[in-house]
Amino acid sequence: VKKVAVLGASGYTGREIATWLERHPSLEVDGFFSARVGDGPPPPELPFARADQPLDWKRLRRADGVFLCTPHGTSAPLAARCLELGLKVVDLSADFRLESEAAYAKAYDHPHPAPALLQEAVYGLTEHARERVAAARLVANPGCYPTAVLLALKPLLAAELVDLHTTIVADCKSGVSGAGRNPSARTHFGGVHENFSAYAVGTHRHVPEIHEQAGTTRLAFVPHLLPVFRGILATIYFQPVAGVKASDALGCLAERYAGEPFVRVYPRGLPELDRVHRTNECHLGAADAEGLVVLVSAIDNLVKGASGQAIQNMNRMLGLDETEGLL
Amino acid sequence: VKKVAVLGASGYTGREIATWLERHPSLEVDGFFSARVGDGPPPPELPFARADQPLDWKRLRRADGVFLCTPHGTSAPLAARCLELGLKVVDLSADFRLESEAAYAKAYDHPHPAPALLQEAVYGLTEHARERVAAARLVANPGCYPTAVLLALKPLLAAELVDLHTTIVADCKSGVSGAGRNPSARTHFGGVHENFSAYAVGTHRHVPEIHEQAGTTRLAFVPHLLPVFRGILATIYFQPVAGVKASDALGCLAERYAGEPFVRVYPRGLPELDRVHRTNECHLGAADAEGLVVLVSAIDNLVKGASGQAIQNMNRMLGLDETEGLL
Amino acid sequence: VKKVAVLGASGYTGREIATWLERHPSLEVDGFFSARVGDGPPPPELPFARADQPLDWKRLRRADGVFLCTPHGTSAPLAARCLELGLKVVDLSADFRLESEAAYAKAYDHPHPAPALLQEAVYGLTEHARERVAAARLVANPGCYPTAVLLALKPLLAAELVDLHTTIVADCKSGVSGAGRNPSARTHFGGVHENFSAYAVGTHRHVPEIHEQAGTTRLAFVPHLLPVFRGILATIYFQPVAGVKASDALGCLAERYAGEPFVRVYPRGLPELDRVHRTNECHLGAADAEGLVVLVSAIDNLVKGASGQAIQNMNRMLGLDETEGLL
Amino acid sequence: VKKVAVLGASGYTGREIATWLERHPSLEVDGFFSARVGDGPPPPELPFARADQPLDWKRLRRADGVFLCTPHGTSAPLAARCLELGLKVVDLSADFRLESEAAYAKAYDHPHPAPALLQEAVYGLTEHARERVAAARLVANPGCYPTAVLLALKPLLAAELVDLHTTIVADCKSGVSGAGRNPSARTHFGGVHENFSAYAVGTHRHVPEIHEQAGTTRLAFVPHLLPVFRGILATIYFQPVAGVKASDALGCLAERYAGEPFVRVYPRGLPELDRVHRTNECHLGAADAEGLVVLVSAIDNLVKGASGQAIQNMNRMLGLDETEGLL
Repeated sequence: VKKVAVLGASGYTGREIATWLERHPSLEVDGFFSARVGDGPPPPELPFARADQPLDWKRLRRADGVFLCTPHGTSAPLAARCLELGLKVVDLSADFRLESEAAYAKAYDHPHPAPALLQEAVYGLTEHARERVAAARLVANPGCYPTAVLLALKPLLAAELVDLHTTIVADCKSGVSGAGRNPSARTHFGGVHENFSAYAVGTHRHVPEIHEQAGTTRLAFVPHLLPVFRGILATIYFQPVAGVKASDALGCLAERYAGEPFVRVYPRGLPELDRVHRTNECHLGAADAEGLVVLVSAIDNLVKGASGQAIQNMNRMLGLDETEGLL
Repeated sequence: VKKVAVLGASGYTGREIATWLERHPSLEVDGFFSARVGDGPPPPELPFARADQPLDWKRLRRADGVFLCTPHGTSAPLAARCLELGLKVVDLSADFRLESEAAYAKAYDHPHPAPALLQEAVYGLTEHARERVAAARLVANPGCYPTAVLLALKPLLAAELVDLHTTIVADCKSGVSGAGRNPSARTHFGGVHENFSAYAVGTHRHVPEIHEQAGTTRLAFVPHLLPVFRGILATIYFQPVAGVKASDALGCLAERYAGEPFVRVYPRGLPELDRVHRTNECHLGAADAEGLVVLVSAIDNLVKGASGQAIQNMNRMLGLDETEGLL
Repeated sequence: VKKVAVLGASGYTGREIATWLERHPSLEVDGFFSARVGDGPPPPELPFARADQPLDWKRLRRADGVFLCTPHGTSAPLAARCLELGLKVVDLSADFRLESEAAYAKAYDHPHPAPALLQEAVYGLTEHARERVAAARLVANPGCYPTAVLLALKPLLAAELVDLHTTIVADCKSGVSGAGRNPSARTHFGGVHENFSAYAVGTHRHVPEIHEQAGTTRLAFVPHLLPVFRGILATIYFQPVAGVKASDALGCLAERYAGEPFVRVYPRGLPELDRVHRTNECHLGAADAEGLVVLVSAIDNLVKGASGQAIQNMNRMLGLDETEGLL
Repeated sequence: VKKVAVLGASGYTGREIATWLERHPSLEVDGFFSARVGDGPPPPELPFARADQPLDWKRLRRADGVFLCTPHGTSAPLAARCLELGLKVVDLSADFRLESEAAYAKAYDHPHPAPALLQEAVYGLTEHARERVAAARLVANPGCYPTAVLLALKPLLAAELVDLHTTIVADCKSGVSGAGRNPSARTHFGGVHENFSAYAVGTHRHVPEIHEQAGTTRLAFVPHLLPVFRGILATIYFQPVAGVKASDALGCLAERYAGEPFVRVYPRGLPELDRVHRTNECHLGAADAEGLVVLVSAIDNLVKGASGQAIQNMNRMLGLDETEGLL
């Protein structure tokens, strides 16, 4: 049994990690910490007898791994310190997702807080970085939207089934938990319920992340806010190279993901959001429409899109079976 | 004051027409009829003192106009009979939306029930058929999805801002009322709530309607089911001709719809579903994303997408101000 | 046509009044004001071309009546000033609902800001104060919960059908709009959606209001938060005096409210929330359960429970037909 | 490891049992059966590789226990047959919940299908029948509403804190899953969403069950339908005997349930529905209101109110730790 700690335990991703770790047979939580000392009482949703605490570096030293659920900008210096203590680090913020300082500074409006670590960090889309994750000290856990989009597209791009003379469209829809736990006009029940909207068109911070990892900028990403709490469903449209149909795309995906514990490729039909609810799974389907191939990719944004994938990565980094605690 | 009747008053569109007509200063309802005699008690949602009744042709003869809220296949023969009685007819079913018998038979799996009327029927996307609607005896009220998509695209296609060497994507999301009032696994609360899904990809019956009216088949239409009751939000992606940006598209739309009472073009920002809730308005916005232009079009599927537009059309057919009862 | 102004137009009740006044044939809005100068831009939900403005007393003087949608404590001094200008005032806050300074100070934790006006203010539960409202300069618009509870109970208490040796139970459920427009943990989508809770048991500020107006303190009121935006449904339980059944209660209510435009008594069956959605109506039903009479009262908290009743009262104060703009 | 089977696996309770048993360390499912042969394909929500099957009595004989998720009237003869095969039976239907044939016939409109077993069946409110459940061959799993109400009231009734000269009020609110998986006007998204209603006042079949188990008929039970999928929150009002307050009720409950793994008594504050979401827990709180004691009891209707409590009972019947698979 290995020991892990959670920093920034008061947000949705911290809470979600706590829930999954309760059932994990080989990871034991030694402290939920709130990075800011005196951050107030723990959220009532945390398991009853357990409180998050001000950060205690001595105690943290005993852990084998740490999950950083802290905001971007805050995570990087914490990661640096944790690595010095010899901990394995999975960072759920955006601090180590982009490859260059310049891209980070442009997307996040401040200089990168720990540029020396950028090269070392491994982008933890587990199914596409399995061995590098196992060997890593520091994993950048992918963004929720990029996880849904990249799991669908990467095998097809690698197999050159996508005609990149036209622009891929990733029309993505996310539940409200993606906007975090802070109350705002945007997350007020009255603004979400019976509503639906696109936002941050052309400016969302996941755009450069998707472009870098997809290896192309010919992809338009538009996020929308769904009146549900959990889940992302991405509808992705691409012009296939001549002669390619949805069935070919499905064949490619099925072959690439054969044996994967957390990816299901539908031989027919399309995923719905509630099929992946509270699972670490990504469900993929495809159909033809007027010569385009339409991919549908569904994940739970708090699980495969955040905390579940983080545990999946930590499992690998600590030499455990990748699926422990996640089935 | 003119008299109108509603046939097929027990579904969502019939009920919605009833609600709006209650406030209409120049249209008086002379009977809500259920096309099938002995169709059971009226739905409890209908205004209290009022019941729908078995069809009474003698009484119907007194009306000036009739709204057909009956299912496809049922509407066409009713329309023929009503025209013989001298009534103006707005048909909310799909029976007169397509131009050819062959296209109808293919999409609806049965021969057209009144092919002689197909040529006469006017496709009632009011803003694009204002004079023809005024002169018509029979108007085919557009489908809900086509209304949202065509109001956004038709001016841009006419102005040749769209590069049709690539395929337009219309990613559309509709509330549950679009699926009608019949209980089914598809409309069960447990299957809709906290869920989201694409459906009928490449096979939806609105595809030929959109293609015919847009004048191109280079458009992929994918509908999704939102966990809300009302509303359609369409996110439409197209490759513009060289040099064209979202701002040009907005300029084109603003010019085309200047003075239109029911279309609003946003100079900045994008429409949200709740802005058009229970209105007869279509709200349009645009943004750039990786060289594509992204259009967002929002309507209330039961109003501008059905019953409101039907009243708008009837107003014109009966010589009333187009906006009466709809503001 | 009379002129009215709305102070505090940026909250839910101000917005709701704006929506209804758009259709009012005899009231014209001459300014939506925000009581605090420089309160920032108007909420996007307000009708497009119209903005709320810093308070302009000169302009206000031209109005015949004013709606105060300002918070308790703020309303009272504004009311005093408006009365000096000769305006009719409907105050939607709690400032004039309680009869005594002492009760107000206890419930609202601060001394009453304009005690001289307390005696003059008329409690505007319209159906029970019709003539006094017509003669009033200042009307205290009832709270949302009290409106639902009192419309059901007052006729039965007056007819002495309720055995006050036992305590009446008013188990009330409200949509989120009752908690106002300010974002908070309480109104965050994630805390409301798929949730339900009781709150403020024994301490809610509507308790003294209900007790005063019901004329008894033998009534336990427990509010709950429903995962809907609009509406209050109150389930009220009382021990009837010997021999009295639900049918007797219904008879009493039907007689009392015969001819009332905004109260419907169900001869059988019980009201549901969506029957009163966006109406100024209160629907009442009753049933027997183990010797108790169970009353169900449903209103839209933003309409009959706030803005609609406010317009109803203003109509009377300005000599208009009580139903104008509300049907 | 013991073997269990699930009969009637296609409804919500069967599906829920399937979900929990996937994680159960000591129970292995040997077949999900649909009681009716040829009942069609399994619901898509069932775990992928697993299908329910026509009933195979030979295979069933190998099991140690069986869960009956079949409808009332169907369960009783199946239970009789399973007992003959030597299986332990937990029946989730209402067939063995009432003590007398007469009460059953009155509530369910048909004669009891297996009256000989009525005496033997143990009413499985586990916390109040722990030893009898352990010794039973046949357990009647309690109804969802009775579970919520009885866990709150039984200790207080036993301690004689409730003044039964007045009538207890149990105002209960349930999510839609309580109405089952069959599509109907009642479960249509359009009738539930943004709606709320009381139903079956004075006539609900859980009334005699609650009365029998509470040992008093002085309890009025009114169920309501919440626009959520899961969960029951019961607000219960009683007149305490002289001098008794909410704090006394809490003390009584805390003492009675000390050490119980699935009942939490809140020393302060009240339970909310989402605290018990997808748990087998019942959360209890209390407050004072105008001399009454107000109890709030929250459960997940599909877990503690059905499938979770069924597993809890089966664990006891098969000699396992009561909490296995449920934490």
